[in-house]
Amino acid sequence: MYRFQCDYTEGAHPAIMQRMIETNMEQTNGYGLDPYCDSARQKIKDLCECQDMDVHFLVGGTQTNTTVISAALRPYQGAVAAVSGHINVHETGAIEATGHKVLPLPSEDGKIAAAQVEEMCHAHWTDGSQEHMVQPGMVYISHPTENGTLYTKKELADLHEVCRKYGMLLFLDGARLGYGLMAETNDITLADLAKYTDVFYIGGTKVGALFGEAVVITNRALKKDFRYMIKQNGGMLAKGRLLGIQFDTLFTDDLYFKISAHADELAMKLKKIFLEKGYGLRYDSYTNQQFPILPDSHIEKLKEKYVFEFWEKVSDTESAVRFCTSWATKPEVVDELIRDIMEC
Amino acid sequence: MYRFQCDYTEGAHPAIMQRMIETNMEQTNGYGLDPYCDSARQKIKDLCECQDMDVHFLVGGTQTNTTVISAALRPYQGAVAAVSGHINVHETGAIEATGHKVLPLPSEDGKIAAAQVEEMCHAHWTDGSQEHMVQPGMVYISHPTENGTLYTKKELADLHEVCRKYGMLLFLDGARLGYGLMAETNDITLADLAKYTDVFYIGGTKVGALFGEAVVITNRALKKDFRYMIKQNGGMLAKGRLLGIQFDTLFTDDLYFKISAHADELAMKLKKIFLEKGYGLRYDSYTNQQFPILPDSHIEKLKEKYVFEFWEKVSDTESAVRFCTSWATKPEVVDELIRDIMEC
Amino acid sequence: MYRFQCDYTEGAHPAIMQRMIETNMEQTNGYGLDPYCDSARQKIKDLCECQDMDVHFLVGGTQTNTTVISAALRPYQGAVAAVSGHINVHETGAIEATGHKVLPLPSEDGKIAAAQVEEMCHAHWTDGSQEHMVQPGMVYISHPTENGTLYTKKELADLHEVCRKYGMLLFLDGARLGYGLMAETNDITLADLAKYTDVFYIGGTKVGALFGEAVVITNRALKKDFRYMIKQNGGMLAKGRLLGIQFDTLFTDDLYFKISAHADELAMKLKKIFLEKGYGLRYDSYTNQQFPILPDSHIEKLKEKYVFEFWEKVSDTESAVRFCTSWATKPEVVDELIRDIMEC
Amino acid sequence: MYRFQCDYTEGAHPAIMQRMIETNMEQTNGYGLDPYCDSARQKIKDLCECQDMDVHFLVGGTQTNTTVISAALRPYQGAVAAVSGHINVHETGAIEATGHKVLPLPSEDGKIAAAQVEEMCHAHWTDGSQEHMVQPGMVYISHPTENGTLYTKKELADLHEVCRKYGMLLFLDGARLGYGLMAETNDITLADLAKYTDVFYIGGTKVGALFGEAVVITNRALKKDFRYMIKQNGGMLAKGRLLGIQFDTLFTDDLYFKISAHADELAMKLKKIFLEKGYGLRYDSYTNQQFPILPDSHIEKLKEKYVFEFWEKVSDTESAVRFCTSWATKPEVVDELIRDIMEC
Repeated sequence: MYRFQCDYTEGAHPAIMQRMIETNMEQTNGYGLDPYCDSARQKIKDLCECQDMDVHFLVGGTQTNTTVISAALRPYQGAVAAVSGHINVHETGAIEATGHKVLPLPSEDGKIAAAQVEEMCHAHWTDGSQEHMVQPGMVYISHPTENGTLYTKKELADLHEVCRKYGMLLFLDGARLGYGLMAETNDITLADLAKYTDVFYIGGTKVGALFGEAVVITNRALKKDFRYMIKQNGGMLAKGRLLGIQFDTLFTDDLYFKISAHADELAMKLKKIFLEKGYGLRYDSYTNQQFPILPDSHIEKLKEKYVFEFWEKVSDTESAVRFCTSWATKPEVVDELIRDIMEC
Repeated sequence: MYRFQCDYTEGAHPAIMQRMIETNMEQTNGYGLDPYCDSARQKIKDLCECQDMDVHFLVGGTQTNTTVISAALRPYQGAVAAVSGHINVHETGAIEATGHKVLPLPSEDGKIAAAQVEEMCHAHWTDGSQEHMVQPGMVYISHPTENGTLYTKKELADLHEVCRKYGMLLFLDGARLGYGLMAETNDITLADLAKYTDVFYIGGTKVGALFGEAVVITNRALKKDFRYMIKQNGGMLAKGRLLGIQFDTLFTDDLYFKISAHADELAMKLKKIFLEKGYGLRYDSYTNQQFPILPDSHIEKLKEKYVFEFWEKVSDTESAVRFCTSWATKPEVVDELIRDIMEC
Repeated sequence: MYRFQCDYTEGAHPAIMQRMIETNMEQTNGYGLDPYCDSARQKIKDLCECQDMDVHFLVGGTQTNTTVISAALRPYQGAVAAVSGHINVHETGAIEATGHKVLPLPSEDGKIAAAQVEEMCHAHWTDGSQEHMVQPGMVYISHPTENGTLYTKKELADLHEVCRKYGMLLFLDGARLGYGLMAETNDITLADLAKYTDVFYIGGTKVGALFGEAVVITNRALKKDFRYMIKQNGGMLAKGRLLGIQFDTLFTDDLYFKISAHADELAMKLKKIFLEKGYGLRYDSYTNQQFPILPDSHIEKLKEKYVFEFWEKVSDTESAVRFCTSWATKPEVVDELIRDIMEC
Repeated sequence: MYRFQCDYTEGAHPAIMQRMIETNMEQTNGYGLDPYCDSARQKIKDLCECQDMDVHFLVGGTQTNTTVISAALRPYQGAVAAVSGHINVHETGAIEATGHKVLPLPSEDGKIAAAQVEEMCHAHWTDGSQEHMVQPGMVYISHPTENGTLYTKKELADLHEVCRKYGMLLFLDGARLGYGLMAETNDITLADLAKYTDVFYIGGTKVGALFGEAVVITNRALKKDFRYMIKQNGGMLAKGRLLGIQFDTLFTDDLYFKISAHADELAMKLKKIFLEKGYGLRYDSYTNQQFPILPDSHIEKLKEKYVFEFWEKVSDTESAVRFCTSWATKPEVVDELIRDIMEC
């Protein structure tokens, strides 16, 4: 059996493991106050073409979302997000556990538009009894989204604009950021993210690291005392250098980008086959997650050799499923999968 | 100007004020441990035809909902509610502030059906990664709803059934309970509520009291240590007897029911006129809240003499509005309003 | 039996009840947006000799403390308080329920000193791993304290100073403020409170009202969106005018001060007798709460006619107890109590 | 410079790194549902001589304490702990952030006694207004404590007893458990912990792992839905097998015990020298943390070659400091330190 079920089935890129071994018996300060974290921070600043930012390393995505959002909001504020957003669906209410409502906006493909945010905010601020409702305090988006879709630079700039207008922060969840940045249709850079968002994170867990997310904060107010927030949310890794070593490696010789491109290329090969085979696509993704609609009989056949995720029933005889490639996906296995699909 | 904007524009029923004055200089224990609260509790138990219940008195609705829901749920559980439910829209995230997500279900008229709950729960419990999502822990309904609509006894029993099946509590918000119980189409009694819900409350603030909500708990587990919850949520009134006196008065000589019936009758007079006048009804309410759809020109005209609530735009030239009657509404003012409507 | 157990055993001052009756059938806006609240606000501003402040009316003390503290603190900050402070002992963890630690300072008499706060803050900010500890974010004091003791204007100014130095807010709980302001040893005025604190509240529940606390905010940042905080914490009374009417009455013709002075005078009569009788005093209070140390045999005797509170065992044969007078205490009953004490 | 400042300055035991490398490119399920976690769970159950327990793997200590405590307590309950306990001092209010008060007990050496707990609980439950105070819901202890001290089996059994009496859970924080279990004065086994506590954890971060804490739950009620709690608290590691691999390695061939014994032996060598040198000991520790009291001049001298932690000023000329050994401490460096101490 070969797993295409998600992008975190293996360990870490061998270059990371190598550095881990090499540095294993060194002694360093804990909690992110070590030379490896410093080096990784500097590399990220350089890539973002911005020195006036704070970079923190946390262990996982839910922890990161919770820490950032609870740091950004006043108690009566909520986070605007797509109804399908990770924080609204798949974090067991972690945001609410910090006291904040997720304010869902409808979304067909995982994205939300500046116009939707504008409408929600306008309604809130013109309502006579606004203090009876949760105040929109930030906008949460993912790039790529849960559905593999991407924002354009224009859409991002528009969201930035509406956030400024209503005094809200813009937060971009980049759990799969590499796969987004390297997609053939993507026109957003790290420097754009630093410019248009108040805070975003560069995902490591799903892009080559054992674990780890790099939080980049450009908003001045949010920078203040952020390490207290990390500690309180259980995200301050004692041996923090493990995060520094990983991100330092990922941002050496463009490793992060190369391995992301690898995954996207294999995903595009799959997408091409799905289309050739006549399968519909639940979402039009140019990133490492693909959502073809297959006859249930084909699904049953492929399940004998491959693990992939059921997404949703589309008709009596067809279902959407998810195939993920990753930095670790072997080209020859994708070729085999392609052959098996063609034979369905 | 006469106000039909809500059902809490006046003070309290004169009989309550009278008892307040009479007892004013008596000395009693605080915090609900006084003879007036005891007497009111007993009357409520008798009306519910159930002695094995706990009755607590709180000051307001948001406080009551927050206290009950946070007492009932485990940290990772949420409260299933209509998307238009008071806890989901008009409590400034008070439920989320206690750490719990509101799990919204679509609703056209403020009600939710057992089948919808069944579907949500079934989906949760059959999902392979259920621990990544908020667990449905209770169902929250209102009777009447925010839209003035009513559950039938059958619908209530069905919700009870699905809650039992999935180990959830059923909580009924009765902020306007009197107006529901006395509606001509209502077939639910206090005894039914005690039988089919785990906890409900009898609203006082909107039904004749200065303030106050009587929480009735039949669920054994929820009874335990509930006074700690009240205190922690800021709901333990020092001079608790003020609540006891009010509810004791409301449940003497059927006052609660008589004044509720008064409001419903006036609302039905209005409804009849709306229909005669050819206005549509946004919701088909038999309770004290009426939601007619008026030409905007009529609205402008009526606003010169009456205060009522804009509800939503329905077309370019028409809007739904809300008229509330209450225990305090004067029949002659309703007659005048009727004349003014007919002249529009 | 006559109750000296606390200062909230009766209803409200008759002048308040009179206004309640007179205004009962008037129609007003809810939620504190009515003319009575406006009038009361203005009177409080005038008494504080400060127009640049916000005044909000809440129902009870725990609710008020919770709302103010959670509005003032960032998630990782705590409230510095005397170990015996109300928020640390008698609010069932309501502050912690909003996510904040109470940082206790030792206290013999309920007061804390600027030097203690300075020491705690200095230690925090010079510790190398400060982000591993809760950051002191505000100072909470009561005037009078739980032990009936009073701050001097100098002590208050010093606390103000240390709060400024470390960027902390100063919050004064005035649940029994009237009894403090009218004490013969008091040198603090409402204007001083407006000057030296960022926020304080004027207690109504224990000083003549049925219920109600008036929160006075001078700190600009804290003013912002405070009504959202009130609503979220369940403190926005639907019929908010009830609070306005009460405080407007209390601040008409100096009623608040006169009835407070009444209670203090009776307390001083009791104190004089305790000393004449040779009883020790657990705390040296000049306010309405008195803490004499009585032989247990005397306590038993007095308990036959009076209700008062056991405070703590002092020796094998003696205990400290608490006697409270209030705006409602009858002089003739105090005289009777004095006679009974002398006969012990 | 050589670091004795804490026990997490290096990476992981080489055997762990070896297994990480060997398994790196395997594909497994995430979130702890993999064969390595299963294997580690079984080994822990066998060592605890108990099969009826749940074992979960989390990343770090603060996260673990927060998850366990918030899972165990009702909203109005608090965790009883030594005033110096990690949750009370060094977790930035993480427990309070979940809504729960830490109820501190005085402690000279980091331990608390059953009699203290008994006294606190008795006072709570016999107080007439108990619902105004936080209810003691669990007891939190550490073994070894923050001060390197150890509980005896008798003391543990007594704590177990008082917890049973008052319906509280007993939770043991084992961040440094190995160093405790292998101390020459220790008489507690893993089987004892399974028997006398409701939940405890076996620390990996400080005892040979890169990171990781193994939570062992024997209490039936606490087992229910614990994975939801882990996820909500951000502790569900995507590549959960990393935790399984580490603990499986630590519990193969007694590695966990051997490396703990190694650290304790070196600490005992240091302790012997401290005593020979005439230094006082701030705490009488038989574990890997040693707290000698040194003349400040000696401290200055040793700081030129070694990093260790300032603990507290003891007199004008002396201070207590902390030296930690660990699984990674080199015997030859300890020998060198000993020579340097003797030469002071």
